[in-house]
Amino acid sequence: MRYKATVMYDGTSFCGFQVQPGLRSVQGVIEDVLTRLLKEKIKIQAAGRTDAKVHALGQVFHFDTGIDMENWQMKNAMNSHLPKDVYVKDTEKVADDFHARYSASLKKYVYVINFNEYNPLYRNYCWYHAPNLDIGKMKDASEVFIGEHDFKSFSKDSNVSSTTRRIDDISFSFCDEILKMEFTGNGFLHCMIRMIVGMLVEVGMNKTDAKTLKEILSLKKRGTVKKAAPPSGLYLKCVEYRQK
Amino acid sequence: MRYKATVMYDGTSFCGFQVQPGLRSVQGVIEDVLTRLLKEKIKIQAAGRTDAKVHALGQVFHFDTGIDMENWQMKNAMNSHLPKDVYVKDTEKVADDFHARYSASLKKYVYVINFNEYNPLYRNYCWYHAPNLDIGKMKDASEVFIGEHDFKSFSKDSNVSSTTRRIDDISFSFCDEILKMEFTGNGFLHCMIRMIVGMLVEVGMNKTDAKTLKEILSLKKRGTVKKAAPPSGLYLKCVEYRQK
Repeated sequence: MRYKATVMYDGTSFCGFQVQPGLRSVQGVIEDVLTRLLKEKIKIQAAGRTDAKVHALGQVFHFDTGIDMENWQMKNAMNSHLPKDVYVKDTEKVADDFHARYSASLKKYVYVINFNEYNPLYRNYCWYHAPNLDIGKMKDASEVFIGEHDFKSFSKDSNVSSTTRRIDDISFSFCDEILKMEFTGNGFLHCMIRMIVGMLVEVGMNKTDAKTLKEILSLKKRGTVKKAAPPSGLYLKCVEYRQK
Repeated sequence: MRYKATVMYDGTSFCGFQVQPGLRSVQGVIEDVLTRLLKEKIKIQAAGRTDAKVHALGQVFHFDTGIDMENWQMKNAMNSHLPKDVYVKDTEKVADDFHARYSASLKKYVYVINFNEYNPLYRNYCWYHAPNLDIGKMKDASEVFIGEHDFKSFSKDSNVSSTTRRIDDISFSFCDEILKMEFTGNGFLHCMIRMIVGMLVEVGMNKTDAKTLKEILSLKKRGTVKKAAPPSGLYLKCVEYRQK
């Protein structure tokens, strides 16, 4: 029996999605709950990893078990055992060839920058930035990243076979002094969105320009981009699949 | 020199406003910062106490010091030393007879109930409740509390000389499945708003009615009200003063 689950979490108190020895990870917390619940060792496979303090509104994972449960039963059983910063929105039985990572066709991430005066209640949920950004310039410069590119310059070290990814869209919305940037693409490298946002903010402050970003991208060299936006502003919004 | 300060805080990681030995309190954190900053022992006096996990958007306190600083300097100095869950919005020099507690004429608190599906990102900032409340009935029943009453039944033990308070208004707003109740009055006893909200929710679930609330109020007896709404939904919104 293979189950697909969609999960939300507050990344603030996690070392990230992936298990790390001695640290509290989202994967670790979920695997512990499932292993206890189903009385067999469960390993989950997620659509993608998120870093420490990065949030998820619609992370997807799958797992296999011999236990047959109704979807609503599985959802309720998990939620009654999970800690309060993780919540399963949905579970469903899927075909054996469904894979949370390899079957994914699109991922959407949102990055939130807040230009209002600092409010301690939102400190873990956005990037507070002085309102001195030229959003028009940021939007224009974001075009550099659209399409299929080798994003090696905009990534941190990790074990990936290829650093080529496709970004379909970066959309900007601005309301109540809050800027939201939504990234749609077939996948994102470690730290890629935070580095792109970090450099777009540099453009917005007139510290660099689209031409320079294009040059950095074509360098295909790690370590070129020093500015990464803080993790607390980043949300994995959803993962889309062609088949189930 | 007497300073008045308006402060916001996220109550999640505090034992409450008031200093308690061995615990992290808002008062303790602020007094430590001021004592270090001004190099003299500073005690602050707040408009009112808030319980563990209760938030503030506009708590007010005053303190005395021999050091003369511009208002913006005092604000910036405090904020650069305070932890990220406390933020000073405003400081100003006031007359010697200003008292954050005794000069207050009105206080406003907001209580937030969320009827949407659980979202771990908001877990510390509202009360998640099933959408089975008759808000019209709650609104009608809230009239019981308007005016000057002895609210002893709706309070927890604390050292107060009188348990009589005046509530001027309880206003209801409902938007996007979120109910906000705003309480305006000359002061509130320990746990009073959470007990009133707790009982109004019982009315909304048809478990009790306005007549019973009136009877409980007239009993003037502690321990009668067993239901208190959780602290995470409560915000001290602002404190108003006649004079400065």
